[in-house]
Amino acid sequence: MRGAGLTIISLAAAVSTVLAGSKISTSRPADKEGQYPRLGACPDPHACIFPPDVSTFLPGAYFDLRVELHAYDKDTSNPTPAAYKEFKTTIRKDRGDWVDINTFFKIKTQPKIENWNFDWIDSIETQYASILNSTRKPVEVAVASRAWRKLKINTPGNYEVKVQYGPKQSYTAMYTIVEPKKPKKKAKNVILFISDGTNVGMITAARALARKHTSGKYESLLTFEDFDHLGHVITNSLDSLVTDSANSASSYATGHKSSVNCLGVYADSSPSSFDDPKVELITELIRRRQPKKAIGIVSTAYGQDATPAAFTSHTRRRSTAAEITDQIINGVGNWTNSVVPDVWMAGGAEYFTGPLALNKKNYYESFKKAGYNVVMDKKSLTSNKKKSDKLLGVFRKSNLDVWFERNLFSNNTVGNKAHPDLSGADALGSNQPGLSDMTIAALEVLKKRGGEDGFFMMAEAASVDKQLHKFDFPRAWAELIEMDVTIKNTIAWLKKNGEYEDTLILLTADHAHSFDVWGSVDSDYIMSHEDASDMRNAIGISSQAGWPGYFDTNGDGFPDNWSPKISLAAGTNNGPDHYEAWQTSIKGPRAPTVLGEFGNYVGNPNDAAGKNGAGLHFENNLPHGEDQGQHSMSDVFLYANGPSSELFKKTYENWELFFKITEALDIQKPTKNE
Amino acid sequence: MRGAGLTIISLAAAVSTVLAGSKISTSRPADKEGQYPRLGACPDPHACIFPPDVSTFLPGAYFDLRVELHAYDKDTSNPTPAAYKEFKTTIRKDRGDWVDINTFFKIKTQPKIENWNFDWIDSIETQYASILNSTRKPVEVAVASRAWRKLKINTPGNYEVKVQYGPKQSYTAMYTIVEPKKPKKKAKNVILFISDGTNVGMITAARALARKHTSGKYESLLTFEDFDHLGHVITNSLDSLVTDSANSASSYATGHKSSVNCLGVYADSSPSSFDDPKVELITELIRRRQPKKAIGIVSTAYGQDATPAAFTSHTRRRSTAAEITDQIINGVGNWTNSVVPDVWMAGGAEYFTGPLALNKKNYYESFKKAGYNVVMDKKSLTSNKKKSDKLLGVFRKSNLDVWFERNLFSNNTVGNKAHPDLSGADALGSNQPGLSDMTIAALEVLKKRGGEDGFFMMAEAASVDKQLHKFDFPRAWAELIEMDVTIKNTIAWLKKNGEYEDTLILLTADHAHSFDVWGSVDSDYIMSHEDASDMRNAIGISSQAGWPGYFDTNGDGFPDNWSPKISLAAGTNNGPDHYEAWQTSIKGPRAPTVLGEFGNYVGNPNDAAGKNGAGLHFENNLPHGEDQGQHSMSDVFLYANGPSSELFKKTYENWELFFKITEALDIQKPTKNE
Repeated sequence: MRGAGLTIISLAAAVSTVLAGSKISTSRPADKEGQYPRLGACPDPHACIFPPDVSTFLPGAYFDLRVELHAYDKDTSNPTPAAYKEFKTTIRKDRGDWVDINTFFKIKTQPKIENWNFDWIDSIETQYASILNSTRKPVEVAVASRAWRKLKINTPGNYEVKVQYGPKQSYTAMYTIVEPKKPKKKAKNVILFISDGTNVGMITAARALARKHTSGKYESLLTFEDFDHLGHVITNSLDSLVTDSANSASSYATGHKSSVNCLGVYADSSPSSFDDPKVELITELIRRRQPKKAIGIVSTAYGQDATPAAFTSHTRRRSTAAEITDQIINGVGNWTNSVVPDVWMAGGAEYFTGPLALNKKNYYESFKKAGYNVVMDKKSLTSNKKKSDKLLGVFRKSNLDVWFERNLFSNNTVGNKAHPDLSGADALGSNQPGLSDMTIAALEVLKKRGGEDGFFMMAEAASVDKQLHKFDFPRAWAELIEMDVTIKNTIAWLKKNGEYEDTLILLTADHAHSFDVWGSVDSDYIMSHEDASDMRNAIGISSQAGWPGYFDTNGDGFPDNWSPKISLAAGTNNGPDHYEAWQTSIKGPRAPTVLGEFGNYVGNPNDAAGKNGAGLHFENNLPHGEDQGQHSMSDVFLYANGPSSELFKKTYENWELFFKITEALDIQKPTKNE
Repeated sequence: MRGAGLTIISLAAAVSTVLAGSKISTSRPADKEGQYPRLGACPDPHACIFPPDVSTFLPGAYFDLRVELHAYDKDTSNPTPAAYKEFKTTIRKDRGDWVDINTFFKIKTQPKIENWNFDWIDSIETQYASILNSTRKPVEVAVASRAWRKLKINTPGNYEVKVQYGPKQSYTAMYTIVEPKKPKKKAKNVILFISDGTNVGMITAARALARKHTSGKYESLLTFEDFDHLGHVITNSLDSLVTDSANSASSYATGHKSSVNCLGVYADSSPSSFDDPKVELITELIRRRQPKKAIGIVSTAYGQDATPAAFTSHTRRRSTAAEITDQIINGVGNWTNSVVPDVWMAGGAEYFTGPLALNKKNYYESFKKAGYNVVMDKKSLTSNKKKSDKLLGVFRKSNLDVWFERNLFSNNTVGNKAHPDLSGADALGSNQPGLSDMTIAALEVLKKRGGEDGFFMMAEAASVDKQLHKFDFPRAWAELIEMDVTIKNTIAWLKKNGEYEDTLILLTADHAHSFDVWGSVDSDYIMSHEDASDMRNAIGISSQAGWPGYFDTNGDGFPDNWSPKISLAAGTNNGPDHYEAWQTSIKGPRAPTVLGEFGNYVGNPNDAAGKNGAGLHFENNLPHGEDQGQHSMSDVFLYANGPSSELFKKTYENWELFFKITEALDIQKPTKNE
């Protein structure tokens, strides 16, 4: 296993650094081949322990522990066996004596056994049984489980948790409590910019649109490309090659890889989304160890979406938006300190009041009562005088409109009835703030509130990902360029306000899309031909790619023209059936697919990015029922600037960023009261 | 313009650092939109200067200067105008007085005007005139040109070269001669590893095949991922978004971006491949400034291929393999010091002797006469006792076979008749050395020959690119993993031989392919279905991607099994018509296309990577006549380890690497004799 983010060391080495000579077997069960596991990170045939094997913790960080025992018979013609009745959970430190888990954590009452059943789709043949005219059924699994809540271990070392569930049946998971590290230079402030779903190819394309070059040499690069250090982030999840934005952002926020859809928890097999074993968020830890520090969350998505929610929530399902809204202000009962961010800005108004809000409660009122200044449009945000108050900005139902609709085509937003007051009025694009507006407004409040204790902020460009899913490349490029301009404005603000030298700025993504450019397209030519064989000749490759026609002459950081004659021949490598003619869609974001007659999505003949509803045809390479492009596995970029930025100069796993950021913030060591 | 590789500065800033207050206009002609330029880097309507605007040089580095004047009439019904009869070329330093170019360079005789004509395909409508039933013709351009050979400027500063070709018609290009830099810690040795055509997505995939993970966390990363620093390289060419291996490797070797197919020259418009204006190679510069340093070139391609040739050649056309072979040992007449590498190893035997060799000369004999030990198979290479002699290793006609055929399926090479002695005997895969064999053998010789003066080596994994062009992903992964193992073995060798602390190791690529992974594939399932809609269900995305079945249990760095049940759903975003079922081709590298009846390439029904010659269909998105996938624009990775590795920690343009490597080697300053 790799250490907590600093050096590549073998498990044996990791262990020996703590154990100084004692021997622990380095033979651990590697992840098993397969698309249909019983449950993620359960290599044992019957036992699961969460947090799973090789989990890593800061001393004193809170976590829940869940043990599950799975009884099942793979021959589904037999009845499901009875659940395990008894099992014993023990723990030992550094190969010492095994101690009962309750004794170790000073828990007086052994938690009761919980029971439930779940269906395990154990193979692709079972998954597609109806198509295959097969009688194969999922395997029913009878579960017996115990959960221990709100545990923590203050003393660094290697700990093994063992569940014994038969005379010779046991399973052991190892945890590492790391030695706390002090930073060489502490970061008073940390700003974590996340450009959702952005790969290296997108950076290259954004530069080609936004920067001038002479004889093929750029006069300047994107703002963040001048940061002190560059690294890469490995994004795969606990149990899959490819991640989603929930468990990837959650890994940044917790130091734990998890499963698709998870926020601040490991995924157990129970039906509830709120009983899964939790791990502490960096924001919760800040509230305990640097309570005066201000915390801000900004996103261009609906604010209950995966990336922003990862910094305030604990839920198995990112789709539980009503509960996520409640957790922003109320946290999770019987758990560690709630985050209650000083600044929270995004879309997602429909979960703050009205029928979709939790228990139809009016959360706007709750936030106001809790001292929040509530703003609902760009004008009231940018003229905000209450900079000492907490700030809630909710600017639209659902996701904020994208840069195109906020800046170029606000008319496309007429009739959206998305006003955040849920009156049914429109939330016009031109009335919604952009990422830069929100970020700078957040900084003003965070500086006032954090004072000498500084702030932590996460700010997300959410729609790079959302537009890449729909192959609307011009809109995706604009969202990324908006991130670049936001970073430029942020640096100017930090310098003006004397915070630059004390601020660690990070820009990363949470996962990739397989985006890249293989040439250029003559837009006039492709649009004046009907046959694919002719349209394809509009594409210039190799020396014939030449230069595209984007130019930023007004110096605002964005190209002035979005429909040049020569555009980029760009795309991803997977998707449903769709068409491509590389036209910038003027009437609104692309809708590349429609539901076909056999329940599969097919190319939309009215897709505005095509040629009279057509273009070159991309043939579906996704399983049945998918209507959009999928995330990809590639590592993503990590740019770092300021104090402790030297911690971010190589390739790291996503979970390691938590350890690096907590080191930069100097919150790795338990406080005296802990 | 960006400075010579260190900081991002505006042109004004770059100039002012040298000029200390004097003013030069920052308004330079940016690269123009378009797929059909008259000639690359010629923004003026009639004049071209090569090296082009914003070229950057080390003091004392040699270059040729060519001025071209273009007379033409875009109305092709008119006769072509006469070529320009007279034009005057002047130069000035730091806004001083203009001086005649001959005077400045102390050239006694003004070079004669050369004349030729060339056809300018000025638009896509002209390119496809026959398809469009149009009478449009290329524009004939009448050229008048002068060339000044083997110039150099020793004094740092900003120089403007102006050609005046009419009373008010002139064009000016600016050059910068940089202040020479001394390294903080000099690198005695530099090893430049180039993994051709490799993007970040390929690194991610290679790690997933070659490294073990538990609970989704890798136990170790690839060898080079532990290097001191990580950066990115911008790969676009002088005149196009997308580069090829010639002009990209040439930019590393010369500090100059050039055009597709160019090696060590800027592309003029003349028909000859050998009169284009040259720039000095890093290897030539080493021969002048550190003459005792040993130089090695290693590649798994034919050794006249773009990447290795970039370090010994000057030619407009990478395809001039016979001349490139001659230049290895003879250099270029009337130019700077020849490279004559101490070690040269690759394929490409057919250009060393026989009908394809230059003037049918026997170059094996030439090399032997020049003191080279000539070896032709793995056995004689690895048992080489003549470590003080120069070493020529030629192991096959054409490219070396790939790792699969050298290590797993040597039987596929029976009958290749590719023995390097051109006897018509086979060059069996198992008799060919791998990249690691060649690299370690090269190191042995280079250490002996370079001694205290050290060595410079370029070693290329050429077939990552070649296999990606043909969508043979397993073979491409194996080539990249072989690079990783080579680097591991190199580090071990360097440590054992006391050279590790003095060696700067770089790993980069020259350009990308748009490769990425979007899920996994159940190989059994896809192969047991016929319809695309069923085959597609074999693909697992998001949480269903799970883990693939590659395992390296024997610890050799390669997966032990190349046809697991669960493989990677992987691909690129462009290509000709072809099929994909993600089967590892056992009988030899993939042949994904065949020529169809209308002159277009179509999916090969006998492609061994498909299902009985089929699979999911990828629809052509390239212009007419392309038979393979194309390079992409994405920036590539740059890993750096050892002395001066801190120069490689951000995003740089490909040409900047020359300046960084020469800084590390401490060869930026002219020697006393210059």
